[in-house]
Amino acid sequence: MLIVPEREIQGLMTRDAAFDAVEKVFAAMAAGDAYNFPVVREAIGHEDALYGFKGGFDKAGLTLGLKAGGYWPNNLEKRGLINHQSTVFLFDPDTGKASAMVGGNLLTALRTAAASSVSIKHLARQDAKVIGMIGAGHQATFQLRAALEQRPFEKVIGWNYHPEMLPNIEKVAAEAGLPFEAVDLPGMAEADVIISITSAFAPSLMSDHVSNGTHIACMGTDTKGKQEVEAALLARARVFTDEVAQSISIGEAQHAIAEGLITEADVAQLGAVINGTHPGRTSDDQVTLFDGTGVGLQDLAVAAAVVDLAVEKGIAIEVDF
Amino acid sequence: MLIVPEREIQGLMTRDAAFDAVEKVFAAMAAGDAYNFPVVREAIGHEDALYGFKGGFDKAGLTLGLKAGGYWPNNLEKRGLINHQSTVFLFDPDTGKASAMVGGNLLTALRTAAASSVSIKHLARQDAKVIGMIGAGHQATFQLRAALEQRPFEKVIGWNYHPEMLPNIEKVAAEAGLPFEAVDLPGMAEADVIISITSAFAPSLMSDHVSNGTHIACMGTDTKGKQEVEAALLARARVFTDEVAQSISIGEAQHAIAEGLITEADVAQLGAVINGTHPGRTSDDQVTLFDGTGVGLQDLAVAAAVVDLAVEKGIAIEVDF
Repeated sequence: MLIVPEREIQGLMTRDAAFDAVEKVFAAMAAGDAYNFPVVREAIGHEDALYGFKGGFDKAGLTLGLKAGGYWPNNLEKRGLINHQSTVFLFDPDTGKASAMVGGNLLTALRTAAASSVSIKHLARQDAKVIGMIGAGHQATFQLRAALEQRPFEKVIGWNYHPEMLPNIEKVAAEAGLPFEAVDLPGMAEADVIISITSAFAPSLMSDHVSNGTHIACMGTDTKGKQEVEAALLARARVFTDEVAQSISIGEAQHAIAEGLITEADVAQLGAVINGTHPGRTSDDQVTLFDGTGVGLQDLAVAAAVVDLAVEKGIAIEVDF
Repeated sequence: MLIVPEREIQGLMTRDAAFDAVEKVFAAMAAGDAYNFPVVREAIGHEDALYGFKGGFDKAGLTLGLKAGGYWPNNLEKRGLINHQSTVFLFDPDTGKASAMVGGNLLTALRTAAASSVSIKHLARQDAKVIGMIGAGHQATFQLRAALEQRPFEKVIGWNYHPEMLPNIEKVAAEAGLPFEAVDLPGMAEADVIISITSAFAPSLMSDHVSNGTHIACMGTDTKGKQEVEAALLARARVFTDEVAQSISIGEAQHAIAEGLITEADVAQLGAVINGTHPGRTSDDQVTLFDGTGVGLQDLAVAAAVVDLAVEKGIAIEVDF
């Protein structure tokens, strides 16, 4: 039984490793080699916490297990701990024995950023120059850092409901030597790629704000009722997702489906594009949209990768369990 | 983060501690202070394994977490490992951080035995003298050992589909200084308490085999389609269970419900009897029946108890996670 504590993840896990792990598991999902289990998510009636499990099995990568944890909204204020707390548990699929326990907090940020990056790699125009960020919180910095590695972007533009947070992403742009400009939402028309990473219950980005040829990654909607972009934008775009069942029920596509603007058949798996069984973007004029809902298999994939790295570097704690 | 490996459970956990933990959590469930999460159970398509999660939260005992694992039917033959493999993970309900990892194999046997024992304590006649065992496998020995502590039994009788396994339970009777007699199913009429612990898809014990005043604990049915006793026996008995929703869907009560012999309202929580909000047995003539389906909260309760014992004895492995 190997243990990789949260504090070791930063020094072990790279964006490249997260990208590779997520790209591979999306491909396995689309090929039918990997599937997610039903998600358990419970408001436990204590500390206003949401707690649950996201599990899955990747037969190709032989990765079995779950991420357990959730959202404890009082952690930061009361205890100086981050509010999202999670742990990944891996099991040996040959025997059912627990094989590894891995801190899941930073990994969750990295795997979420990797998902939008994988979508940019496979769906954005090759000549994309301007990336637009909607949202400027902690997770947005991970998203932007990973995205900048996918195309030779020349400029970052950003909008946030609380503009005083924009320096978070301006700083990431500066690290990459790129100019940053705060824009209003119609200003997003300049962007070739847009990442939306907010927690909202009404759309910010309207179809009118988006130019033809843009790729949009919607990364903030993972619950019934949440919404980041206008439903009409999904009707206009080619829509891709990590998992169709989640996209149409708790993801960004839930609204366009409910309004009858698209059907389940209009939502394709990003993994199919990776595998070459779906053409993906077929013209420079198309709007493509990735609905990233977040699946347990992503967590398992990055956790398995970090365990390998920890073993390689002699950092994994071995416990005779 | 505390770790209690499987190998330490035997030396730490007592039947008394398991009994107390299960009795307390059944009471908390009936009082509305503890609840189980939806169960995830998946045939993963590898090694014919069944894998899943049983989670819950006990607000009274502040126990949060899950048991993960399942059934790997080839373990014993291929690898010399037991087929049922499980691990319990506990979380701090104040912060969401993982707090303990505990080997769950022996604990599962102990908590299942504790459940029928709790039912015997609260539902069997005080003057019960003869205990009947249906089933004589590994789990049956745990059941019998625990049950013998609940009443001053004077005799053990037993039936098993494979009679050559009966020496398993005869040995437990002998340890307790009690005579053992192999009987046919009609011979169960002599028993004041019957524990059925088989894995079957057709009933063995018929209503005719049961005398008035008997308490029956049905411990083997935890899946749609499984059945240990005739549905008519549930119509005749006062029926109790650990969790009503499981009892009527995957427990022994599923058949009597499907046949219209009883309704959900006829199935009471054993915890209500423990709490004194349900009278339980009200006459020496009644047949009482406990449908033990097995819930995650039982696993969490015994795991939390064993962590306390391990800390007390300095055996828990502490990992800075």
